[in-house]
Amino acid sequence: MRVLIAGGAGMIGRKLAERLARDGSIAGSPVTDLALADVVAPVAPAGAAFPVETLVADLAQPGVAEELVASRPDILFQLAAVVSGEAEADLEKGYRINLDGMRLLLDAIRAHGPGYRPRVVFTSSIAVFGAPFDDRIDDRFHLTPLTSYGTQKAIGELLLCDYTRRGILDGVGIRLPTICVRPGAPNKAASGFFSGIIREPLNGLEAVLPVGDDVRHPLASPRAAVDNLVHAAGIDGALLGDRRCLTMPGLSVTVAEQIAALRAVAGDAVADLIRREPDPTVARIVAGWPQAFDTARADALGFRCESRFTEIIDVYVADELGGALTGAAR
Amino acid sequence: MRVLIAGGAGMIGRKLAERLARDGSIAGSPVTDLALADVVAPVAPAGAAFPVETLVADLAQPGVAEELVASRPDILFQLAAVVSGEAEADLEKGYRINLDGMRLLLDAIRAHGPGYRPRVVFTSSIAVFGAPFDDRIDDRFHLTPLTSYGTQKAIGELLLCDYTRRGILDGVGIRLPTICVRPGAPNKAASGFFSGIIREPLNGLEAVLPVGDDVRHPLASPRAAVDNLVHAAGIDGALLGDRRCLTMPGLSVTVAEQIAALRAVAGDAVADLIRREPDPTVARIVAGWPQAFDTARADALGFRCESRFTEIIDVYVADELGGALTGAAR
Repeated sequence: MRVLIAGGAGMIGRKLAERLARDGSIAGSPVTDLALADVVAPVAPAGAAFPVETLVADLAQPGVAEELVASRPDILFQLAAVVSGEAEADLEKGYRINLDGMRLLLDAIRAHGPGYRPRVVFTSSIAVFGAPFDDRIDDRFHLTPLTSYGTQKAIGELLLCDYTRRGILDGVGIRLPTICVRPGAPNKAASGFFSGIIREPLNGLEAVLPVGDDVRHPLASPRAAVDNLVHAAGIDGALLGDRRCLTMPGLSVTVAEQIAALRAVAGDAVADLIRREPDPTVARIVAGWPQAFDTARADALGFRCESRFTEIIDVYVADELGGALTGAAR
Repeated sequence: MRVLIAGGAGMIGRKLAERLARDGSIAGSPVTDLALADVVAPVAPAGAAFPVETLVADLAQPGVAEELVASRPDILFQLAAVVSGEAEADLEKGYRINLDGMRLLLDAIRAHGPGYRPRVVFTSSIAVFGAPFDDRIDDRFHLTPLTSYGTQKAIGELLLCDYTRRGILDGVGIRLPTICVRPGAPNKAASGFFSGIIREPLNGLEAVLPVGDDVRHPLASPRAAVDNLVHAAGIDGALLGDRRCLTMPGLSVTVAEQIAALRAVAGDAVADLIRREPDPTVARIVAGWPQAFDTARADALGFRCESRFTEIIDVYVADELGGALTGAAR
């Protein structure tokens, strides 16, 4: 089983590569080699029992997609994307990477002709949905993105479905909820505080909470995202019919529930590092976001997420802090 | 008011140009000039009180969109498209014309920068929706195309909404139902019989009906389609919010109701020219099509269609047969 991860240097791509190195297989089939491609140099995971190739490559440049697909990988993870804020700030770059890059990859697969029909796992986003929402946001809610990023992901979903229907590839699109706890430095994303109010205090640092404690949003750990990517790679496509894209399960919690869980896991001193500093701009953006999804379809197909927020904190402590609370968190 | 019709040589484009020549204005503003562009030479409508330019131009070729937009038209009708059957038969051509052509047009508008924000009326299609359907197919039904044509139209809708949201243009997308009675020679489209069973008998010719009399489908006349295009050109975009695409009203009738109306208008001898010759392939395709839409949103905004099928026949007789029944139809 040859595997390609486009976007292999990103947070999820890196964790996915590490997971494949650990497991050595996908759905019972051994991984024979892995290629990681990204615009910045990907890092090969330690301990892989199969060869790992790393490539600095911009999928949106002519000829690059053909090169990545030349070895006819059996599974392609298409994670390469410009993130929401950047796609909004730079229209051309967003469309070039998120739309043209996707299309070039699919067309490079098509160029191989019949006989090559790989599994393509595409990371979409709940940003394909925009307010006003129905009470029930399931996979039948219409595509109503309110950002260029969401528009580009929605177009990617449509292309994935059409190319799958035509027998060119075997696509599965998974719409990830907001990932929490995102490791690393704080970023400027409007959603950054969902991770920041957990991550910073656990590292002994103050965190700013720009919204009210009653804000509710679906979250899942990076580990759940990787689990679901691997699950998507192995699933029987026929179970999806023509509707190849699925909203992934997310744990719908309030900020208050997040903070209570942090207090339970790490104590008052840590939870008290959260400073409330309301930001009307962030509050307004977040007010337009969905609070919960009906993911019965993904649930039935075996996709999963955490069921309590303390588990999401535990994943961060295990995967990013070496399993032990440090700093102020004792 | 400068007007451009991309796809001006098609059936709807031609009728729209004739309508503008007759009216001389859109929503009370005089048309000062009209440009018709298409891959085959458009015909300037007779009797226009304003200059009409006709251009043979392929929107998907580099530089062509810029040329069409150079004069900064106030209203652009984007009707240029490869039809469903051809987009399915030739994947590359369909994506090139229906996706790249649309995007190049929108980007040519963007290249003018702030200060130019024209109304763009885009003809989408009910092909953006695919089975299985809910009972209620309204504008909130999700985009689920089951053809490459429907996929390309859905992508066009998403681009139109995103470019509108960003203030680059002021888009309105209208999803036309099946047009009936389509003038001219029979074509190979699976939907062709909806027009054929009326048109051929009215011209004294036998028509083949490949499906059962109980088949139900939404129809509207070419005149209603043109009315709605003109209405879309003049509507206040703010009324649409971020959801710029609307399913147009269609008259939901059964084939039996079509035939009864033909019999009432033109007599038994004409209606008896319909020969039943079941075609399982066509029947299977048509079984996957919607039977009716909830178009409350478009209705409230003043879009319209015929309310009885005899009116649809009357439009054909008036607009295509010079107002009088001919041949066998007496």
